[in-house]
Amino acid sequence: MKIELITIGDELLLGFTIDTNAAHLARALADIGVQIERRTTVGDTAEEIGAAVREALDRTGAVITTGGLGPTSDDLTKASIATLFGRGMRFDEEHWAWMAERWRTRFQREIPEANRQQAMIPDGATKLRNNHGSAPGIWLEDERGRWVAMLPGVPREMRGMLADTLLPMLRERVTGDRVVRSRTLRTTGVPESLIAERVGAIDGGVGDVALAYLPNVDGVDLRVTVRGASSAEADRRLDGAVRRLRDAFPREIYGEGDADLAAVVLELCRARGLRLAVGESCTGGMLGARVTRIPGSSDVFVGGVIAYANEIKTSLLGVAADLIRAHGAVSEEVARAMASGARARTGAEIGVGITGIAGPDGGTPEKPVGTVWIAADVRGDARAALLHSWGDREEVRQRAAQAALNLVRRMLAGD
Amino acid sequence: MKIELITIGDELLLGFTIDTNAAHLARALADIGVQIERRTTVGDTAEEIGAAVREALDRTGAVITTGGLGPTSDDLTKASIATLFGRGMRFDEEHWAWMAERWRTRFQREIPEANRQQAMIPDGATKLRNNHGSAPGIWLEDERGRWVAMLPGVPREMRGMLADTLLPMLRERVTGDRVVRSRTLRTTGVPESLIAERVGAIDGGVGDVALAYLPNVDGVDLRVTVRGASSAEADRRLDGAVRRLRDAFPREIYGEGDADLAAVVLELCRARGLRLAVGESCTGGMLGARVTRIPGSSDVFVGGVIAYANEIKTSLLGVAADLIRAHGAVSEEVARAMASGARARTGAEIGVGITGIAGPDGGTPEKPVGTVWIAADVRGDARAALLHSWGDREEVRQRAAQAALNLVRRMLAGD
Repeated sequence: MKIELITIGDELLLGFTIDTNAAHLARALADIGVQIERRTTVGDTAEEIGAAVREALDRTGAVITTGGLGPTSDDLTKASIATLFGRGMRFDEEHWAWMAERWRTRFQREIPEANRQQAMIPDGATKLRNNHGSAPGIWLEDERGRWVAMLPGVPREMRGMLADTLLPMLRERVTGDRVVRSRTLRTTGVPESLIAERVGAIDGGVGDVALAYLPNVDGVDLRVTVRGASSAEADRRLDGAVRRLRDAFPREIYGEGDADLAAVVLELCRARGLRLAVGESCTGGMLGARVTRIPGSSDVFVGGVIAYANEIKTSLLGVAADLIRAHGAVSEEVARAMASGARARTGAEIGVGITGIAGPDGGTPEKPVGTVWIAADVRGDARAALLHSWGDREEVRQRAAQAALNLVRRMLAGD
Repeated sequence: MKIELITIGDELLLGFTIDTNAAHLARALADIGVQIERRTTVGDTAEEIGAAVREALDRTGAVITTGGLGPTSDDLTKASIATLFGRGMRFDEEHWAWMAERWRTRFQREIPEANRQQAMIPDGATKLRNNHGSAPGIWLEDERGRWVAMLPGVPREMRGMLADTLLPMLRERVTGDRVVRSRTLRTTGVPESLIAERVGAIDGGVGDVALAYLPNVDGVDLRVTVRGASSAEADRRLDGAVRRLRDAFPREIYGEGDADLAAVVLELCRARGLRLAVGESCTGGMLGARVTRIPGSSDVFVGGVIAYANEIKTSLLGVAADLIRAHGAVSEEVARAMASGARARTGAEIGVGITGIAGPDGGTPEKPVGTVWIAADVRGDARAALLHSWGDREEVRQRAAQAALNLVRRMLAGD
């Protein structure tokens, strides 16, 4: 099944909002073998909405829209598409009663009359239940089987309705058993060119799958994709490709799919009964923030020190002022002392130290912007590494946090 | 001038990459009075690219594309659009020589032959200089004045080429002086409904401008927009609207445009010669990371303690264990002690404390998920506030960091 996606909203077109719904929909639909052929974004005008939906229906006969279902005069999706289908609009008493009840229990007040528009439904349409907001989704289909599914634009509502209602409907409609299926392996700390070289050397390659290299700030992801096979066949081919890649990169691959290196490291620590502490300079708390983003991190992560100023490195992490004077704050010696200080001051078994020059200023010929020392101390066994990072301030910091996590991972894995 | 935007790439269509180029282009073009009428995303197939560009040219005669200019077989943009214009492709010796030189100086090696494709140019096209990568952009125009500008898909290259080359070209082409112009005022800590109520009470409203409420995790932005006026007239009307809004929200508006509350607070501290330290529990370093994201923060921000575990609150921030036992870690008393402890332990004039329940677990009937206490101690003058936050773990944490910054801002402003 091929469909087109139309995202509606002046906010999107003017660039005030980044369209995250489109990516979410594409991935969710690919999982059930539905491919988005084209995506269009139009503003909040009835003509533009009508034209874009008509053209898309002519091409594929199957369209999903997001946005324009709210209560204000900007919200024109339902009426525009009803007109296109030659349908009138009717007031849905049942939905109105449900909304009124929702306002009473949730906001302790009567629903404003202005919201009546949200209860207007095209004739002959099917409502799609919204468990996360007040606008119903709409399914409208003509006698030739051409259909439009209208979802809300608010990401939380859209995602909920997609999962609860639309995906199950579409799954039933997908004829045959042809799927598009992918798996992604995550690497960090290896340049793309080196990965490509080693992939090229795999005997027989990765088999009959498409392989894509997806570099990002945290590393390079390797995505293998099979299209147009049966579900079982796709899984078999993907399994084979994943096995070959894992054999070729036994140390570099830290996880699959959306795996977060912080979660991987927490799990490794947990399994060994080790607690983690940080001493952060240029990252300013970013590593701690990243680790504590993971629910349940508190049984491993105890905290640490943000030692942005040199005096704090000395007073709260115990880094000798002489050491900083002798080697500079951005040095292997100071990174090691920060890691060990984080351990000693918190009582954790593992301490991590990060000190570097994130830019845009502060670089010197010897230590240019992007120079970052990281260190980890696991029960007194310490290691350090020097990064020559690139990109803007935030990228340098993000790479430093990722590299520090990876250093801990490899030490715990015994690499 | 109305144009259409076509973003090209399987990655975008499959949802593996979120399309940030589209939003960036829309905002940059709006600044020079160019409006994007419609945006389309297609995959890496010659037919889809050709069809989408043809349809867009038929509608507006002016098209910008991003993506598909790289060296691999996926990169079909130039050839597809050349075919549409009835043009052949020629090998550009000059560009090839430039690329070869770039490889020699940058990578110390000869350029691979595979890259020849990047030096292929449609007949009669104008190259758009790329200062951030090796693919040139392309400007192709027919005898009727219809044009396509092809930009690279890599955001950094696209943004550079847009600013360096394409925007100046388009600025010259924009006929007349009709612009779309916006200004955005940022508020935090006030619910949208309360803002709407107070805007409604402004005598004469905000004048002849469109007003949009843009709620986000950090607060509610107020955007005023004028369309189709002259540049001077638009500025005059926007100035008036901004003045009225600032009068109505003298304390709630903390900045304009992309203003970051962390930068505002740093500036307030800097002007008063005050240094800032943090004591973070549930945010785990997020506030420190956010403050240090701002270049030059080191003259104000000294660092602090990530006190995720209660023992760290005691050992590194000096929060009495009895206090935690008596009131719980998430309490006004502990937040105040963390703020004061951050000051005392670092020697900074301002200390901030944050302690809360970010979820998804850990809530109780008395202190449900989303309960966060924040406190600030400015030279011994301390204030605390209780937040009842909502959303997921990351949103609760982000709101807590924002509210803590706002508390400092209001204390320094004497509110």
